[in-house]
Amino acid sequence: MTIQGPSVFGPEAASGYSATRMARSLLDPHNSVTPLPRFLRWLEEYGSQDETEVHQVRLDRLDQWNIDPGTGNIRHGSGRFFTIEGLRAHRPGGPVERWTQPIIRQPEIGILGILVKEFDGVPHCLMQAKVEPGNFNGVQVSPTVQATRSNYTRVHKGRAVPYLEYFRDPGRHRVLSDVLQSEQGSWFYQKRNRNMVVEVTEDVEVLDGFCWVSVGQLHLLLTYPDLVNMDSRTVMGCMQVRAADPDTGAPDPLADDGGLRTSVARSTAEVPEDRFARTLHWITDVRTHNDMLVDLIPLNQVTGWKLAEGVVRHADGLFFEIVGVGITTGGREVRQWTQPLLRPTGTGLAAFFVRRVEGVLEVLVRAHVEPGLMDVLELGPTVQCTVANHAHLPAERRPRFLNAALDADPAAILFDTLLSEEGGRFHHARTRYLVVETTADGEVDAGPEHRWVTLRELSVLMRHSNYVNVEARTLVACLHSLLHDNS
Amino acid sequence: MTIQGPSVFGPEAASGYSATRMARSLLDPHNSVTPLPRFLRWLEEYGSQDETEVHQVRLDRLDQWNIDPGTGNIRHGSGRFFTIEGLRAHRPGGPVERWTQPIIRQPEIGILGILVKEFDGVPHCLMQAKVEPGNFNGVQVSPTVQATRSNYTRVHKGRAVPYLEYFRDPGRHRVLSDVLQSEQGSWFYQKRNRNMVVEVTEDVEVLDGFCWVSVGQLHLLLTYPDLVNMDSRTVMGCMQVRAADPDTGAPDPLADDGGLRTSVARSTAEVPEDRFARTLHWITDVRTHNDMLVDLIPLNQVTGWKLAEGVVRHADGLFFEIVGVGITTGGREVRQWTQPLLRPTGTGLAAFFVRRVEGVLEVLVRAHVEPGLMDVLELGPTVQCTVANHAHLPAERRPRFLNAALDADPAAILFDTLLSEEGGRFHHARTRYLVVETTADGEVDAGPEHRWVTLRELSVLMRHSNYVNVEARTLVACLHSLLHDNS
Repeated sequence: MTIQGPSVFGPEAASGYSATRMARSLLDPHNSVTPLPRFLRWLEEYGSQDETEVHQVRLDRLDQWNIDPGTGNIRHGSGRFFTIEGLRAHRPGGPVERWTQPIIRQPEIGILGILVKEFDGVPHCLMQAKVEPGNFNGVQVSPTVQATRSNYTRVHKGRAVPYLEYFRDPGRHRVLSDVLQSEQGSWFYQKRNRNMVVEVTEDVEVLDGFCWVSVGQLHLLLTYPDLVNMDSRTVMGCMQVRAADPDTGAPDPLADDGGLRTSVARSTAEVPEDRFARTLHWITDVRTHNDMLVDLIPLNQVTGWKLAEGVVRHADGLFFEIVGVGITTGGREVRQWTQPLLRPTGTGLAAFFVRRVEGVLEVLVRAHVEPGLMDVLELGPTVQCTVANHAHLPAERRPRFLNAALDADPAAILFDTLLSEEGGRFHHARTRYLVVETTADGEVDAGPEHRWVTLRELSVLMRHSNYVNVEARTLVACLHSLLHDNS
Repeated sequence: MTIQGPSVFGPEAASGYSATRMARSLLDPHNSVTPLPRFLRWLEEYGSQDETEVHQVRLDRLDQWNIDPGTGNIRHGSGRFFTIEGLRAHRPGGPVERWTQPIIRQPEIGILGILVKEFDGVPHCLMQAKVEPGNFNGVQVSPTVQATRSNYTRVHKGRAVPYLEYFRDPGRHRVLSDVLQSEQGSWFYQKRNRNMVVEVTEDVEVLDGFCWVSVGQLHLLLTYPDLVNMDSRTVMGCMQVRAADPDTGAPDPLADDGGLRTSVARSTAEVPEDRFARTLHWITDVRTHNDMLVDLIPLNQVTGWKLAEGVVRHADGLFFEIVGVGITTGGREVRQWTQPLLRPTGTGLAAFFVRRVEGVLEVLVRAHVEPGLMDVLELGPTVQCTVANHAHLPAERRPRFLNAALDADPAAILFDTLLSEEGGRFHHARTRYLVVETTADGEVDAGPEHRWVTLRELSVLMRHSNYVNVEARTLVACLHSLLHDNS
């Protein structure tokens, strides 16, 4: 199996060239300046030196955070960072027409940035070992820069954010991607972060806590539970990957071995414009037919939830809780602080169903309506939910494809790993990321809320905001990891 | 000058083929089943038969519209159509940091759809002669379908909307574009319409009030004052036009005659990915650095405006008024009704500065922050304003490039026509659309709010929401009209 080399591309296709180099690294992930065992040992050592301690604190006894007596909203004394407020949703014709819930409001746009540099022709990412208070397991692999605006404008009064200058003022460097992307639309109100990939050619000093890994290696690390954090995954999902000639789209330079790997590669090739126009038409259509009216309301006007013993809980113990935590750390910008976290009541499931049509992998996406999204809905996994929230429902009222995902034949499972969501806002939030291959074309009736798309279609959409949700972006990165030749 | 024919494109490039046919019609606009004189006579006859009468009515004496005693908001008794409410904007660091104003709120998504069909290999658009109550001059050329959701779900209890089925259920037809686009962000709160182009091959019955014109002819009609209405223009702007081989991007099949027309054609050709990535980076950057907090407030809490003698006016007579009108018509779904309209206090100006760089036309777009936009800002004209609102300001406080546009050398003006904005919501709203060529590369210092882009970059962005504002979409259609060989 060979990938057409860079020599065929003129200077104008420079970014296409970078997409092809990404693909080549995915095919051969062990070609890296940091052998995998050394990376894992480095991460483990970093984790073992970590002295972060996290303990629960009543919300009404947090330091510098207040519960507003009028609204019940939870906010920092500085007015910065984020607030916990209430949300009222009205979705005419939806499975639930009206509800209220607590929600995290964080209007500031942060930066999630990965610095890329080529070593011996292989693109590498400068990744950071980072401990977040909500992490299940201490240290995880985080982007080069993971900073809220409060972080990088030093509201914390902490240390400067290393490498920030590459992302705030990329100047002469090459920006491979830079797009505002949403995060969990059921937990955040219109939160967005700037997902950036910046390539440098100059020498970069590697600071303590940072390490270069190849693009392929980073994707391979997705198969380790709770290792690559959510902020890394969303940026990885936005990386443009093309295992085919980006100039002509066809013929595919990969020899067809009839295998899964070739079908993934072909899924990254240019799609016919008519096909993409139909996909855009479908998105506009479902967006037009899903009304959602959303208002922020005072947290103390949310019904069915209450603050008791310093925790905000749903009356039936469903969905999530808002808890307070106190953190003490030896190696962070601020050494001691308290804050609220959102603690989901169960493990999430995010599954892509995939199929092969004429040797091309297709992904079954769903139009997910979530109250915190800026534009009603985004394309998400085939099925995405917290399984426990649906356990009490009869089979016919459960989300479509949930049972099929849970009961999938092990032989059809291409990817299956528990990964952590953002540890700076969520407490022990974990999601099972699953890719299941369906056996034949057209066996699955997609229905109006679902649609089969290629990886290329998702990549094009991910250059823009409001199209692909954070769970689907993780799953795209997981699918890219399948380019690895593990035969 | 020749355009590479369809034979070079495989079936996969079908939509690219349609983009090329669009371009070919633009080059040769008189190749049409309806000769231009016949079309103009038809339109004039339709206009002369029109019996619509519009007279002003006090807002507090409208039929079926009420002024809410608590909020002062103006709304229809049915709760449908639209409302006039108040808006409060906070733009830290902006030229004006805080203000309030009246705004039209119309959360329903309507359809603006143009039906396309090929006659003798030339794509034609089925256009409608339509009278709107706010029109300056009675009849204008409107899309095949121009319908609010209240229209097409028959809240009016009027006639069914002709040709609606092609857009609501395009099924076996080819959807060339379908995208939610914003409208005036200073006058509408998050209004969006679905801009659709649907191509049919089957026979279509031409109803009274409709007529086929070629794509090129329709663009040529843009040079007639107040003829092609805003709803037509926004859909035309979204039409994908490529006067170059869409598969390879280069070499450009147009012989370089060194002229303007060739530079426009070349501006529609594929751009290097690196260039487009930098444009996306710039958009994300300006979006991140422009905070805008917007709330809807009761109309009676808007300061500096008041309702007197049945009209809502600004204290200094600036910006716009909200007036009531009564309409009597002989040829519309509903024969008699009243409604509010927004009446701007002066004529607008929307100007694109363009330049030629190595034979490729580039357009100077500006990041326009407007309170009614869903995502803070969109790319708009180089300069866009109501000139009269700035007349009292010293030169240095006027919008950038305003004086340069007003004082442009007549020889540098490529397009200059007064066109009308939406006559269903605005009363005699007219904008001078201007395209000015700057004389040399780099003479204009773009500054952080402006950027030079190609027509192709704008076309790609217009496939998605929240990127290109309604005035810029009109100007793109005006630029496409320059492909016409009038040498």
